[in-house]
Amino acid sequence: MDNIGYYNGQIGPIEDIRVPMDDRGGIFGDGVYDATMAYDRIVVNMEEHIARFFESARLVRIPVPWSVEELSGLLTDLAGRVSARSKMVYWQATRGTGPRKHSFAGASAGPNLWITVRPLELTPLDGSYSAITRPDLRYALCHVKTINLLPNVLAAQEAAEKGCDEAILMKDGLVTEGTRHNIHILKDGALHTAPCDHRILPGIARQHLLAHARRLSIPVMEQPFDVSALMAADEVIMTSSASLCCAIRRVDGQAVGGRDPGTLKQLQQAVYHEYLADTGQIVPK
Amino acid sequence: MDNIGYYNGQIGPIEDIRVPMDDRGGIFGDGVYDATMAYDRIVVNMEEHIARFFESARLVRIPVPWSVEELSGLLTDLAGRVSARSKMVYWQATRGTGPRKHSFAGASAGPNLWITVRPLELTPLDGSYSAITRPDLRYALCHVKTINLLPNVLAAQEAAEKGCDEAILMKDGLVTEGTRHNIHILKDGALHTAPCDHRILPGIARQHLLAHARRLSIPVMEQPFDVSALMAADEVIMTSSASLCCAIRRVDGQAVGGRDPGTLKQLQQAVYHEYLADTGQIVPK
Repeated sequence: MDNIGYYNGQIGPIEDIRVPMDDRGGIFGDGVYDATMAYDRIVVNMEEHIARFFESARLVRIPVPWSVEELSGLLTDLAGRVSARSKMVYWQATRGTGPRKHSFAGASAGPNLWITVRPLELTPLDGSYSAITRPDLRYALCHVKTINLLPNVLAAQEAAEKGCDEAILMKDGLVTEGTRHNIHILKDGALHTAPCDHRILPGIARQHLLAHARRLSIPVMEQPFDVSALMAADEVIMTSSASLCCAIRRVDGQAVGGRDPGTLKQLQQAVYHEYLADTGQIVPK
Repeated sequence: MDNIGYYNGQIGPIEDIRVPMDDRGGIFGDGVYDATMAYDRIVVNMEEHIARFFESARLVRIPVPWSVEELSGLLTDLAGRVSARSKMVYWQATRGTGPRKHSFAGASAGPNLWITVRPLELTPLDGSYSAITRPDLRYALCHVKTINLLPNVLAAQEAAEKGCDEAILMKDGLVTEGTRHNIHILKDGALHTAPCDHRILPGIARQHLLAHARRLSIPVMEQPFDVSALMAADEVIMTSSASLCCAIRRVDGQAVGGRDPGTLKQLQQAVYHEYLADTGQIVPK
């Protein structure tokens, strides 16, 4: 064959292999991979690559069910079926298939195995190559709603395992946002929230909350706040399109908020009223 | 319908929709998404979500071909087909389908559109929720070979557009690695390379290079080096499974390296000899 694709036992030309749209690979980038050269049926440094692959899976908590022997046998077999002598063997394990949900306990029947083998020659050793330099932006793209969500997935899962609804993320001591909510606090009657920069997603529910606050003459401070401010806040709020404006009442096992229920209620009523009007469930005044 | 999935015009229950294994979503996390609530056929804050979606796509250079009107019409239509009144509409654009390659010029026939609609109730506003705190690790997982590769994809593409082979990434003034190679320098007869921590992938070709250097009595310094050391190096080397040990000779348009061809050649011969022996192309001594 000219090339070969494999997905959970399904084998064929890469162009013909289809995977479920709910595989967590394509939704969360929730997977790990490895790749190496092969020559005829020899997969180069296979044991080392498989060991690293298993270690990658362990680090992101994907329980790979395949033994070293099984995976070696499979990679060798597939490499041997591609007629070119020199080729690249690529394989990845995604966390599984299931309805989109950040945390992953019981989310799927187990990992999916993807493998491709394509002709590839070694890069000529006697060549002269060129490069540019760039800041290492991994990962300063939090303001872009990408599907590079693996760190979010891992933190959401930790929260779920501790019986919590969300993980609040901190960078350099400052609260950035949650894994799938923006995070805000009320203090002395004012709404504090992280400013829109490369560290947070510009939430649309966040924007609506801020607009309502301003309309209600609640001061809005778009400034970073730290964890001690979070713990001492009058109210801690999370917002998203589905969790319009919800109160967080425990953080790391300690009670938080609950000290300004009046302002909280005002904001909740405002966003909920807008939601009802927007969805035709009430006639707006 | 109970739920609905859509992929480039194909429509059905989510569980039945299949996507090509070479869609860049599942390989690189190379896509952007947005999501919002819907009630009956009303997609909440649709214009804002679509505007952010288009902006996300622009920021990562995915040229979405759909007009606001087309996408709104489609989302509204699909939302209306799911019988639950309250639901979540999710959509994403991946950069397209094509053989795995970091840079993306001409890599595909254009973006793929994924949409799902699933029943979902608003999170109750009167609930008390809980959270944990965690360091914001986005993205301190460079040592794990995940498919969260979008920043690598973007930098590789910039390099390709400048006619270069690689982008060398820097963090806090120090060279970390390339988008798909480890980066090393030779200086005064010693091999310098970034240490294995959360900032680089522990490359297997890197490990082999270091082992050969030690065997050849070339001193190995696993210490961070900065850009000026890179520019002043005797040789600049990139390693990967396919590019075993290749010399970079231009960085940001300036000539680099070429001052210690003897040591470079020793290392290249060592890794290439090992490769030939490993693949049965020569009989090892």
